[in-house]
Amino acid sequence: MDLSPSPLAFEMRKKVEHFFETEILPRDPEWRREVHENGNPWPDFLSELRAKAKSQGLWNLGLPMLDDSDPGTRLNNLEYTYVADVMGRLGWSSFVFNCQPPDVPNAEILQQFGSPEQKERWLVPLLNGEFRSTFAMTEPAVASSDANNIETTIESDGDHYVINGRKWWTSNASHPLCKFAILVGLSDPEAERGRGHTMVLIPTDTPGFIVERTLSVFGAKDITTPHDQVLFDNVRIPKTNLLGTEGGGFLIGQARLGPARIQHCMRMIGHGEVMVRLMLERARDRVAFGKPLQSYSTVQEWIAESRLELEQCKLMLQKTAWLVDNFDNKAARREISMIKLAVPRAYSNIADRAVQVFGGMAVSDDSPFASAVASARVMRIADGPDEVHLRTLFKLEQFAAKDEPALSPSYLRGPGNSFLE
Amino acid sequence: MDLSPSPLAFEMRKKVEHFFETEILPRDPEWRREVHENGNPWPDFLSELRAKAKSQGLWNLGLPMLDDSDPGTRLNNLEYTYVADVMGRLGWSSFVFNCQPPDVPNAEILQQFGSPEQKERWLVPLLNGEFRSTFAMTEPAVASSDANNIETTIESDGDHYVINGRKWWTSNASHPLCKFAILVGLSDPEAERGRGHTMVLIPTDTPGFIVERTLSVFGAKDITTPHDQVLFDNVRIPKTNLLGTEGGGFLIGQARLGPARIQHCMRMIGHGEVMVRLMLERARDRVAFGKPLQSYSTVQEWIAESRLELEQCKLMLQKTAWLVDNFDNKAARREISMIKLAVPRAYSNIADRAVQVFGGMAVSDDSPFASAVASARVMRIADGPDEVHLRTLFKLEQFAAKDEPALSPSYLRGPGNSFLE
Amino acid sequence: MDLSPSPLAFEMRKKVEHFFETEILPRDPEWRREVHENGNPWPDFLSELRAKAKSQGLWNLGLPMLDDSDPGTRLNNLEYTYVADVMGRLGWSSFVFNCQPPDVPNAEILQQFGSPEQKERWLVPLLNGEFRSTFAMTEPAVASSDANNIETTIESDGDHYVINGRKWWTSNASHPLCKFAILVGLSDPEAERGRGHTMVLIPTDTPGFIVERTLSVFGAKDITTPHDQVLFDNVRIPKTNLLGTEGGGFLIGQARLGPARIQHCMRMIGHGEVMVRLMLERARDRVAFGKPLQSYSTVQEWIAESRLELEQCKLMLQKTAWLVDNFDNKAARREISMIKLAVPRAYSNIADRAVQVFGGMAVSDDSPFASAVASARVMRIADGPDEVHLRTLFKLEQFAAKDEPALSPSYLRGPGNSFLE
Amino acid sequence: MDLSPSPLAFEMRKKVEHFFETEILPRDPEWRREVHENGNPWPDFLSELRAKAKSQGLWNLGLPMLDDSDPGTRLNNLEYTYVADVMGRLGWSSFVFNCQPPDVPNAEILQQFGSPEQKERWLVPLLNGEFRSTFAMTEPAVASSDANNIETTIESDGDHYVINGRKWWTSNASHPLCKFAILVGLSDPEAERGRGHTMVLIPTDTPGFIVERTLSVFGAKDITTPHDQVLFDNVRIPKTNLLGTEGGGFLIGQARLGPARIQHCMRMIGHGEVMVRLMLERARDRVAFGKPLQSYSTVQEWIAESRLELEQCKLMLQKTAWLVDNFDNKAARREISMIKLAVPRAYSNIADRAVQVFGGMAVSDDSPFASAVASARVMRIADGPDEVHLRTLFKLEQFAAKDEPALSPSYLRGPGNSFLE
Repeated sequence: MDLSPSPLAFEMRKKVEHFFETEILPRDPEWRREVHENGNPWPDFLSELRAKAKSQGLWNLGLPMLDDSDPGTRLNNLEYTYVADVMGRLGWSSFVFNCQPPDVPNAEILQQFGSPEQKERWLVPLLNGEFRSTFAMTEPAVASSDANNIETTIESDGDHYVINGRKWWTSNASHPLCKFAILVGLSDPEAERGRGHTMVLIPTDTPGFIVERTLSVFGAKDITTPHDQVLFDNVRIPKTNLLGTEGGGFLIGQARLGPARIQHCMRMIGHGEVMVRLMLERARDRVAFGKPLQSYSTVQEWIAESRLELEQCKLMLQKTAWLVDNFDNKAARREISMIKLAVPRAYSNIADRAVQVFGGMAVSDDSPFASAVASARVMRIADGPDEVHLRTLFKLEQFAAKDEPALSPSYLRGPGNSFLE
Repeated sequence: MDLSPSPLAFEMRKKVEHFFETEILPRDPEWRREVHENGNPWPDFLSELRAKAKSQGLWNLGLPMLDDSDPGTRLNNLEYTYVADVMGRLGWSSFVFNCQPPDVPNAEILQQFGSPEQKERWLVPLLNGEFRSTFAMTEPAVASSDANNIETTIESDGDHYVINGRKWWTSNASHPLCKFAILVGLSDPEAERGRGHTMVLIPTDTPGFIVERTLSVFGAKDITTPHDQVLFDNVRIPKTNLLGTEGGGFLIGQARLGPARIQHCMRMIGHGEVMVRLMLERARDRVAFGKPLQSYSTVQEWIAESRLELEQCKLMLQKTAWLVDNFDNKAARREISMIKLAVPRAYSNIADRAVQVFGGMAVSDDSPFASAVASARVMRIADGPDEVHLRTLFKLEQFAAKDEPALSPSYLRGPGNSFLE
Repeated sequence: MDLSPSPLAFEMRKKVEHFFETEILPRDPEWRREVHENGNPWPDFLSELRAKAKSQGLWNLGLPMLDDSDPGTRLNNLEYTYVADVMGRLGWSSFVFNCQPPDVPNAEILQQFGSPEQKERWLVPLLNGEFRSTFAMTEPAVASSDANNIETTIESDGDHYVINGRKWWTSNASHPLCKFAILVGLSDPEAERGRGHTMVLIPTDTPGFIVERTLSVFGAKDITTPHDQVLFDNVRIPKTNLLGTEGGGFLIGQARLGPARIQHCMRMIGHGEVMVRLMLERARDRVAFGKPLQSYSTVQEWIAESRLELEQCKLMLQKTAWLVDNFDNKAARREISMIKLAVPRAYSNIADRAVQVFGGMAVSDDSPFASAVASARVMRIADGPDEVHLRTLFKLEQFAAKDEPALSPSYLRGPGNSFLE
Repeated sequence: MDLSPSPLAFEMRKKVEHFFETEILPRDPEWRREVHENGNPWPDFLSELRAKAKSQGLWNLGLPMLDDSDPGTRLNNLEYTYVADVMGRLGWSSFVFNCQPPDVPNAEILQQFGSPEQKERWLVPLLNGEFRSTFAMTEPAVASSDANNIETTIESDGDHYVINGRKWWTSNASHPLCKFAILVGLSDPEAERGRGHTMVLIPTDTPGFIVERTLSVFGAKDITTPHDQVLFDNVRIPKTNLLGTEGGGFLIGQARLGPARIQHCMRMIGHGEVMVRLMLERARDRVAFGKPLQSYSTVQEWIAESRLELEQCKLMLQKTAWLVDNFDNKAARREISMIKLAVPRAYSNIADRAVQVFGGMAVSDDSPFASAVASARVMRIADGPDEVHLRTLFKLEQFAAKDEPALSPSYLRGPGNSFLE
């Protein structure tokens, strides 16, 4: 299990970092003005930056199944960890490299389950960066953490499907560049658990695809990835828009969530690093009760604990990526749940400490910390709430022990069974 | 950074595990009777087991600097992680393989800093398992977490040193097989910080070496590794007993603590694994309020969190071992502090959960959990209290950032600097 | 120490609750529309509700020093705890009863330190609800948690003061009804610690009083209590605007912060109660993995822990109020720091659990939980960050022990000094 | 709800404190020698101290139902809180005042449910301090946290009961002064939940009452309150030994556990106070890295957090006692579960911090901290594990909300439902 960066990863990290520092970070004030103040969901200079990055091969880096003929550079998951944390330093930088969700996991589904026609029509332009997409799974009416609860119906009608239902957190749906949705719906209510749901592709200009509203997250709307509520009102699509097989929706969904989670985590670690450094700088410069904050052991310990958490998460993430690369998503199922738990917690703790170090500034517009707290909070329910992943871990543990000989009573003796003896 | 087991590690793990399961675990009831009930500090059957293990090369496994001519099998630190966790399953099994503290770290000091004569007289029999040793550092009168506080004096008197002072947690001193102590004392009160202390070797039969008492830990005395308080009352030793150089005591101490901490952590993880499995079994079999404990999500989450902590610790530990193997203790300084923090915490959490799952049995003699809770608590102050390691991490973080360009104000903007954008 | 509600408290609680349920809660949709959607900082119907509440004596309830001749009903602090939690159920309800910060603590300052002229001109209309006010203390340039750092200067110039500096979190400054600010500034840089700052009253229409911008909190701007940044650019005010004495600014500040903290805490507990109930209802109605959320012991424990925290906070708060009522702020100094620590923590924990129970809805506009998480986070730095209050508690503890006989070594023996013997 | 000490409580606290300081604390070294070293379960000087305390009316203070004709002074529960914390300072001091468990709760059962003959024969000498008793409930074979699991049978045989089963944590059973046990057993396996268990009184000299062994707790045996495992092997007792009614065992058990829990908590708070003070003294005197421990904000915060926890627990405990005094156990059911959760947690946290402040000394025989850690850990499973009490709190919460109008959707709106608006 070699977790070191390959030569390619090493080189791409250098390039991405250089591009980030020279082309992206300096334009952040412009981004703020255009996007946050003027509400522009796709500034012109972003298109320019994307063209430039693409021309340098800094494109589609988060797609291990990228074809040689596709634009961009193929990195495996472990290699991608070495560039994704750089992107995490500034939220919008993923767009520049065409590495943004939900487009990347959607592309992965098409790579794996798309028909040649589907690929031609939807995947190619997605990889070229010509348009964007959305993923419609979560529903307001049910606890979607248990995917079996999903109620939106996909009914067969001749050689068409008819879709009815309401989704939310359909991120991107109202973005001007969004051209299609991948939707999970209930096609067979009688099927056994896990077999009744199906995945289909729906062009956003299909009649009955109605964006009802954009949700605020912690009081603010995301301009470039709007989190939308969508009504599917008698949406008719040809059966050629089926992804995979009827009743196979969950299998595809599982395949999708692994890498998506890994990539979210990579970016969080990158931003965690930024926050640790910012804390260090502030603690050095700010004085309270006659000495700099960094003289207080409390503040020292916040920074130290942050470092500890980041390193533990980084290793676990690299191992997870390695498992996916060398085996598959399923082999990494346990580790995917682990990073889904550990990384948002670490990110949340670090953001929380940063707020305490920066005080009033931290909760205002003048710093990235409040949005980090909010994002961290969201991440503990997105991609499956923590409790679902803990449940998965328990079940895997139980499964692993199933055929092992019992340890009790031989190991169940005491005292003195301890390492200190 | 390849963290996989080498073929040798793989083979040795299999052998150690087999030996453990067939020779050691079945004798645990005998150990309890002989040691815990009869107070025998070195049962005959232990000597027999040691001879057998030695004859199979399952000996001195925790000494990466083992010479080809020494008895036993040389494993590097990473390889040793793959056998040490097996030993951790039962406290006394380390003795069987001559892998017990404080003898192993003492042997390491002699390997690195011992003169040929010192090696001949003290190291060879230690490696042969003929006698044991102790390490005299901590003092009751001062906060020994700051080693500079150490007050026991080493005064020069012609070609002798004269030692005066009181030490405690001098583990093993009163054990019948203990033949020498390695002591850290103050040789030059005027020296600059970190240069005034010296390390010497003191035969335990030297006049003035007085074991005053054996300390209880959480109310019980350790029979096979008694934690002693020792008075050094005008102890005279020849200057040939100097280890390293005068004033170089801390450097040696640093060298010693790294692997000692790693090995403690390895054993804790091994015992952590045992406790997770025991929890699983109990949760399956025990019924409360009409359903097995494992039906409660709370209990499921305890087991899941334990797994998460164990895996994160295991990875961090393997990385630390790899760093020491491929570079040195100093290169792994940060990671050594990290595992010193993370592993006892994980072990403590797991032990705590196990108590809650097992109820009354858990705090009694009938299970290993109470002693695990106690050991875990001790480990958070032994080998440097957590706060000292957090302080170290902070200082290393500060040092690493020293020459880097400041991130503020470029990164200190918001909102929207988050990965969710 | 009788913490029960007095007959008056009992009666007022009933009245406020009735008013709240019949007049305020039903108008919440209107409030949202007017304030959140249309950005109206003072809707007409609010003025109507205020007039109605005032006419029923449900007015100025948070002012224990209210004169018999003032409008409203005087409640002491303990009595007020029994109505303030009702107001906490919905953020804007405090306005209806003229119980909103920062006007209430500002009124308290005028009650205690205002000259007859100041009272006539500023306090009377404040109590009548004719206009509002702001408090200018925190500064962006320094760690304002240590009030001695405050740098805005108050210079004497004949019979005027000239004020220069920049403040932020000057909540309300840009509100159309805000007529004056109370400002803390540095009047004597040479004075000993705690004696160099002074408090003055500044009409907001004074030349040089410049609202530079309104801060967002967690990405959103507060419409009805805008958190502003204010530049004081050569602001000249007559010396008759001095509050208290020159150099006495901190003393007044201390007096102000006690009740302000108590009242914040009361409202948090009220909203905490609402969230617990909402969790209960959701856990009953929402199904995941085949059973309602309330069947999971994890969810049961979240609700139970929330109840425990609320009750502990409520008692501590009542005791604090009782101490202020029966002695003074200073006598309650320890308890004020305690509730400042405990209540936002409890509120934060409860909000966090509610998010986990409600999932995606919880972080959106459709529920009060995201803003509760944000508010809770702010409260851990507002009114002094937690660390400052912990420091205060430590110092009080140290002070209390100062003249007591030492407990060591008589009590420093073991084992067996425990209650279990 | 007046929580202040009554004049009687005030006076008794003064007397108990004086007696403690002059008569008990100075004899602690003697206690250690006699009990811990020599294993004497009832030293002569203890009998002398008891006689002296009794003669001063400092006797049976923990029995609110004490008759005027009984020896000692009747205090209600709230009054008793004001003396019990003093006893908590040193474990064995409860014996001196005849306030030790399990005798006090056993006496309460006899006061409430004993027949005149039972009172004459067992209660009177218990109150006189002539002998002691035990309580037999917990069983090794089942999860006794759910009392319905209890399996020991009580079978009717003419005018006798025959008891068969095994109990453990039957504290005191092997103490030389222990004369009777109160046992809970299964009398009717067919009865509905909660009605099939019965409580009986068994003289310890009855044939078939066999103490099998004394359990160690955290590796050490309690000399003066030995925690025993008892086999009931065809124990025959006359039916006049029935306590209450057949099938009414749980009702009595409930009655018993309330005050027992309150009294445990009182003592923990008293010992918590001692530990806080000891920490303060050590932090003042011990130097690390060039400054006293008390200069580190980390250590300051440990002490401050301890104070906060103690005060919150003290208030909750006083409220609980007040509820029992003014209503009954049932009215305080919620609060009893709350203190059962909160106080051992606080005690555990304080003990843990004290260990970190005292270092090696803390886990040895030289201090009371290791036994405090151990006791705290036991208390989280004794008297019902935390999870059972959380479950109770949830059910009470659910019950309280049952007939209330739903808060959703009126309160389920956002954002802005927060107190910060």
